Amino acid sequence: MNRENLIDQIKKKKSFLCVGLDSDLKKIPSHLLELDDPIFEFNKQIIDATKEYAVAYKPNIAFYEMLGPKGWESLQKTLDYIPKEIFTIADAKRGDIGNTSNYYAQTFYDTYSFDALTIAPYMGSDSILPFLRDDKWAIVLGLTSNKGAMDFQNQKLINGKFVYEHVMERCAEWGNVGNMMFVVGATRAEYIADLRKLIPDHFFLVPGVGAQGGSLSDVAKAGLNSDIGLLVNSSRGIIYAGSGEDFSSRAKEAAKEIQSEMESILSKAGLV
Amino acid sequence: MNRENLIDQIKKKKSFLCVGLDSDLKKIPSHLLELDDPIFEFNKQIIDATKEYAVAYKPNIAFYEMLGPKGWESLQKTLDYIPKEIFTIADAKRGDIGNTSNYYAQTFYDTYSFDALTIAPYMGSDSILPFLRDDKWAIVLGLTSNKGAMDFQNQKLINGKFVYEHVMERCAEWGNVGNMMFVVGATRAEYIADLRKLIPDHFFLVPGVGAQGGSLSDVAKAGLNSDIGLLVNSSRGIIYAGSGEDFSSRAKEAAKEIQSEMESILSKAGLV
Repeated sequence: MNRENLIDQIKKKKSFLCVGLDSDLKKIPSHLLELDDPIFEFNKQIIDATKEYAVAYKPNIAFYEMLGPKGWESLQKTLDYIPKEIFTIADAKRGDIGNTSNYYAQTFYDTYSFDALTIAPYMGSDSILPFLRDDKWAIVLGLTSNKGAMDFQNQKLINGKFVYEHVMERCAEWGNVGNMMFVVGATRAEYIADLRKLIPDHFFLVPGVGAQGGSLSDVAKAGLNSDIGLLVNSSRGIIYAGSGEDFSSRAKEAAKEIQSEMESILSKAGLV
Repeated sequence: MNRENLIDQIKKKKSFLCVGLDSDLKKIPSHLLELDDPIFEFNKQIIDATKEYAVAYKPNIAFYEMLGPKGWESLQKTLDYIPKEIFTIADAKRGDIGNTSNYYAQTFYDTYSFDALTIAPYMGSDSILPFLRDDKWAIVLGLTSNKGAMDFQNQKLINGKFVYEHVMERCAEWGNVGNMMFVVGATRAEYIADLRKLIPDHFFLVPGVGAQGGSLSDVAKAGLNSDIGLLVNSSRGIIYAGSGEDFSSRAKEAAKEIQSEMESILSKAGLV
């Protein structure tokens, strides 16, 4: 999916919500467990309930990989079920020497037809370049939402920049606004405004709203640009809003509530 | 597998060779392609041919993942086939927020029973801690063998250290010599001696000998410690030493040649 289509979808739905499919056998409603493929059944109902409000779905690959080959079958069925106009992100955090990164790109872009995947940048340029393709997206970790982000990302370099700033600036030289985004954690809203100055045009994928404690209005205030430029992810807050047979209607309510807030934010900003 | 068992095996085989199973349908001998599971058949014959000389096998997960669920089945069969006394490393370069890293650890330690997996450290402590278990190993990227290593790992921090030094020192505070190793590229032999001073006791997993251009004797001179402390990986140089029906005997010769050089190195150093 290209940038124009993504922005069109955001404006049409008045939403920049990404729903994280962190679907976990230990957490999905127990009545699904007797079915043949509980993870897919859960995802299917979550997608039906939220597709009106979400512009992207982001399966967290760890949750599927853990289940062995069957997990990847659930993932494939989930991808086939997601409406074609919705953006799909493999939250995989891959990255290796060029030859291997090329195979990871083939895995997620070709074997599984994702639009995008998240990339760990530690290994540098040749680990990232294979993920850059027309209409496909490398979403590079910039400043993440977890406590450990302080350990390495937030160290200062002798050039005066933080590691995460240096990473994002260099990567933005390799990828353009049509094939690269950055992960910037919502728990770091105080940094987002500065990062928006540094990287004015690329989309930011922002996890950490909700369960991890970030505020949507703070993120939007700091991170919106004239093309919106934000995808804000919520996983647990939506997919586990309910734990009983009504889980999908509870998920729908939770997604709708976030979308409403986003609509209000976009409208006030004159973006829709 | 614990550290003592690993060192015992190294001394018994007089080898610190890790064979990288970067098994690729495009590169394995064509006569295997008509079989039901060509990747497993290839690995099986490579393992039979090299197990006398290798102390570790390291499947590169990208090559299996790319093939969809069937690739993971080939991987499982390969793991089941590797003799139990040989160390197994998932070259997966995973790492995510704590909750997700915990699932990646379960994937590779429990679902697939690897002894170890490679970890990308960008997300810091809580992305790494879930991989630390008794008798299991987090092998953290320190200084990698690729060109892109210079982009971020080799940047200097205001504390006077390079990013890779800071990463390795901090990680060595979290993991001990019995549950953590570091990836240090053979193409950086000039750095290995310094890193050995900084991190005297942990094992280093060293890729990049052979196809990527690193020298075994340089690596050994710089990196050996009193417990050996090195696993040196060769992938393409062994598994693709031949491309015809004699591929396994060619792989055997290539592995034997490296083992002989290692035996000579260990003997001269008084370690066997």
